[in-house]
Amino acid sequence: QAARDEELLGLCLLPGETLDGVRVHLRGNVELTEELPLALRHGAEGVGLFRSEFLYLNRSAPPGEEEQLSAYRAVLEAMAPQPVTIRSLDLGGDKLAPEINISDELNPALGLRAVRFSLKERRLFKTQLRAIFRASAFGQARLMLPMISGVAELWACRELCEEVKAELTAEGVAYDPGLPIGIMIEIPSAALIADLLAREVDFFSVGTNDLIQYFLAVDRGNEHVAYLYEPLHPAILRALRLICQAARAASIPVGMCGEMASDPLYTLVLLGLGFDELSMNPPSIPRVKEVLRQVRRSEGEDLLEQLLTLPTASEINRCLEDEMTRRFPVLFRPPAP
Amino acid sequence: QAARDEELLGLCLLPGETLDGVRVHLRGNVELTEELPLALRHGAEGVGLFRSEFLYLNRSAPPGEEEQLSAYRAVLEAMAPQPVTIRSLDLGGDKLAPEINISDELNPALGLRAVRFSLKERRLFKTQLRAIFRASAFGQARLMLPMISGVAELWACRELCEEVKAELTAEGVAYDPGLPIGIMIEIPSAALIADLLAREVDFFSVGTNDLIQYFLAVDRGNEHVAYLYEPLHPAILRALRLICQAARAASIPVGMCGEMASDPLYTLVLLGLGFDELSMNPPSIPRVKEVLRQVRRSEGEDLLEQLLTLPTASEINRCLEDEMTRRFPVLFRPPAP
Ligand SMILES: [Mg+2]
Ligand SMILES: [Mg+2]
Repeated sequence: QAARDEELLGLCLLPGETLDGVRVHLRGNVELTEELPLALRHGAEGVGLFRSEFLYLNRSAPPGEEEQLSAYRAVLEAMAPQPVTIRSLDLGGDKLAPEINISDELNPALGLRAVRFSLKERRLFKTQLRAIFRASAFGQARLMLPMISGVAELWACRELCEEVKAELTAEGVAYDPGLPIGIMIEIPSAALIADLLAREVDFFSVGTNDLIQYFLAVDRGNEHVAYLYEPLHPAILRALRLICQAARAASIPVGMCGEMASDPLYTLVLLGLGFDELSMNPPSIPRVKEVLRQVRRSEGEDLLEQLLTLPTASEINRCLEDEMTRRFPVLFRPPAP
Repeated sequence: QAARDEELLGLCLLPGETLDGVRVHLRGNVELTEELPLALRHGAEGVGLFRSEFLYLNRSAPPGEEEQLSAYRAVLEAMAPQPVTIRSLDLGGDKLAPEINISDELNPALGLRAVRFSLKERRLFKTQLRAIFRASAFGQARLMLPMISGVAELWACRELCEEVKAELTAEGVAYDPGLPIGIMIEIPSAALIADLLAREVDFFSVGTNDLIQYFLAVDRGNEHVAYLYEPLHPAILRALRLICQAARAASIPVGMCGEMASDPLYTLVLLGLGFDELSMNPPSIPRVKEVLRQVRRSEGEDLLEQLLTLPTASEINRCLEDEMTRRFPVLFRPPAP
């Protein structure tokens, strides 16, 4: 085990690259500045998902612009010159300060949350956008909008970004005018119109946890139906393919920041789909990289084609497990009987 | 107004048919036997959605086989020789008798409901299936399964149907061995694998209310986000197209039983998509038929192509309203300013 640990540690220093030279950026999902050293130690090439929710939770009033600026700036400076993707507030109203609390929703997962909430509480949203744009002067920042369901919503967010940029320019405050603006693809409608959305943004990041939940109409936190939450449902594979094809056609990068990205069982398939970036909890990076460095993209593409012929999640799962166990007997040793 | 009422009433007696001879069956959504005369008076060619929930509500124990049989038989006999599509129980556990009540779900819309509930409470399900199969001896019955998300779930239901048929045969009880078995398409995953599902069933019926909700991740009963519930979101049009194409490729009929079917604004688009059946609250039938009888399928196809080039629901909506107002100034007079 000690030798194995050493081996994984050694992987941290090597690039995320396939045998045939395809670069896949392996980044960290991070919430607190204190987690950054861990991310760097595991070889994260930047932060693919910086969650801003912690700033808003457990307090009586939302955080001001200066407080947010210093939080974002700290992360950007710690990771420079690597990029940090800051996700705008991804909460439901039920989690926030009492004055803006909305707690009477029958189905909060289908309710006022994330960008919907931000667009309703525009002052709150604008404060966050100002802090993110100002922080962009101190590193490689990217802005990511969660729960986008259509083009009109995206336009509304971009308009607010333009307002913020104009204000900062007028105030003589520094920011990166080319700050990339991207969206999470985590709502089924966004997957189906990925081609229309790809024209309007600088990058995609697939949030598989929500994407799977909504595509299958399953709350995976609900024990009665959690068995239906299947990352390898054929509809999910097809949706991921639609999203990646749309990104490629528009020449924008596409990443994944859901849990699926962190499981090496899926790495070869995600490579075959064409993902440019996988963002995960940092300790998962070495194992994903280990798979990545021993395969070619064409192998991923072939495997994907094979999986796409199967009609059920359990058949796809079995086929993938067989294939990965055959290729990587040490990594995917089947559980002892 | 009296002349107009007379005109609509006259339509009740005419077939649902386009100028170029395409038959679209206009059927009724019905819950109680008492509603059948109303459906017949409005020219319903059978019942496209017979809701069985009323049998289960507001009582201390679920209904037995004999009670259900007589309810289904009454509807079948009243509508014969027209078909009646009986939907198996489409409830969440929270609505049922206390002994099987599940009321602790955080997101009931993503929880244990409809066919998921039936597959968990197999005795309850089997009782209902036995009643439906037995009733099929008395008319043109069809069985429709709600909330199917994938092929495996469908197989589980079909297996139970086979069990029921074998039992009835062994008992010497009459039933229709060719009873058509279809599914509602109302979960995004089902839309994306409509081709895989079409091979396994006798018909599709699209439940637009839920399909739209899940595709857009919007609870339309939630006032804060109801504005996002858009039947003409481009992702919805694309999903409907996928479903209809899959049905056509497998040569099975495809219907719609959500509210979208009952609004004449959508009739020409639904014709263009290729729907064979529209099922609605009976009083809506004459107005839908009025549109249907004045158009050609190719006109619907052309309109659909035009709508599919637009990137947002509001643009699609405006284009459709303009077109329908132009064609049918009396039906779609714009609201007074
Ligand atoms: Mg999410
Ligand atoms: Mg439904």
